[in-house]
Amino acid sequence: MLFRQILDPGTASLSYLLADASTADAVVIDPLPATALLVRSILQEQSLNLRYALRTHVHAPDRIECGALCKLPGVCYAVGEFAVATAAQRRLADGEDVLFGGERLRVMTTPGHTPGCVSFLWRDRVFCGDVMEISGCGQAVDETDFGQMYDSVMHRIFALPDETLLFPGHDYRGRTVSTIAEERRMNTAFLGRSREAFVTAMQAWPGRRLNAA
Amino acid sequence: MLFRQILDPGTASLSYLLADASTADAVVIDPLPATALLVRSILQEQSLNLRYALRTHVHAPDRIECGALCKLPGVCYAVGEFAVATAAQRRLADGEDVLFGGERLRVMTTPGHTPGCVSFLWRDRVFCGDVMEISGCGQAVDETDFGQMYDSVMHRIFALPDETLLFPGHDYRGRTVSTIAEERRMNTAFLGRSREAFVTAMQAWPGRRLNAA
Repeated sequence: MLFRQILDPGTASLSYLLADASTADAVVIDPLPATALLVRSILQEQSLNLRYALRTHVHAPDRIECGALCKLPGVCYAVGEFAVATAAQRRLADGEDVLFGGERLRVMTTPGHTPGCVSFLWRDRVFCGDVMEISGCGQAVDETDFGQMYDSVMHRIFALPDETLLFPGHDYRGRTVSTIAEERRMNTAFLGRSREAFVTAMQAWPGRRLNAA
Repeated sequence: MLFRQILDPGTASLSYLLADASTADAVVIDPLPATALLVRSILQEQSLNLRYALRTHVHAPDRIECGALCKLPGVCYAVGEFAVATAAQRRLADGEDVLFGGERLRVMTTPGHTPGCVSFLWRDRVFCGDVMEISGCGQAVDETDFGQMYDSVMHRIFALPDETLLFPGHDYRGRTVSTIAEERRMNTAFLGRSREAFVTAMQAWPGRRLNAA
């Protein structure tokens, strides 16, 4: 396996490059224009063939929906089945697998931040996009549904095994990884809050993240 | 692979159980009396055969040096070559491999917290014992050498690839994992400090950990 976490410091966004080192087949999760050149350099340096450009979510079918990496030859641009991506070549349903080399990545629908958000499970890692952050919930945007966000985190993400490594779409405090066990114990955005209490708290801070102090 | 992180809440100590799921061969890193029963239950539940009880360090050849797990039949109790463990059955030199099933765990000497400390490398994970903590350095005890601790962290642990997952021997703030990239950027015990400045800072707080605020 090959695994790279790629930070765009300007937006505190995290992309991920995964590959089967024996077959050289690779996928990228949530690629960004700002780091496309870096990803291409790693692909070239490691002699990898990019098979999929996957996005956990798309906010609007705009110019960054499918960046330079999606347009490389042989690359399939894939999103969750309910994402607003007009350029997507494959739409992924809950439980569906994305295969690259001998590796398997499973799709898990986790709506909330947007209605079309999905997470990706690979080995003992989950890439959760913006439905949650380390020690916090995902950012609230116009299309965010707080109740759905709560359900996705509490009943899907937190239902994963303790040691599952959590890799989010953003981190604004320099964190790179957490675990499900740690988030269940320490994430004060969700900890001890009912669905109703979470929704109420989120609505009281419109447009703001409800992160731990 | 099977991977479990086992917390002893009383001492904020972390033990690790690793196994080759296909052959059922397992090793435990830094087992503790308080969680021995839990580890034995997991071994039984998962039908695993414990091959090694490994310790990153031993403070003195005392009653917890080799707990109940080390004494199970078929288990080799192994430590770094300079550890003060009288009951050890195997002593591990820098660069040596511990094999279990089809898995390989590499020994890396990382003295400082004690003169005999080692870390263990497995896949993209490092188990660093008490030479450092997430966002901090290791605890200072009578036998701690601050200069050695600095060298081990800066020149050995921090020389590992960015995405290497750091699993320490303790965490007092509920953290479960970090990465080398994150520690290089965020660990204020070491960040921007020369060896001399680190040693001076440590000596100014005898017996205390020099952790980030």
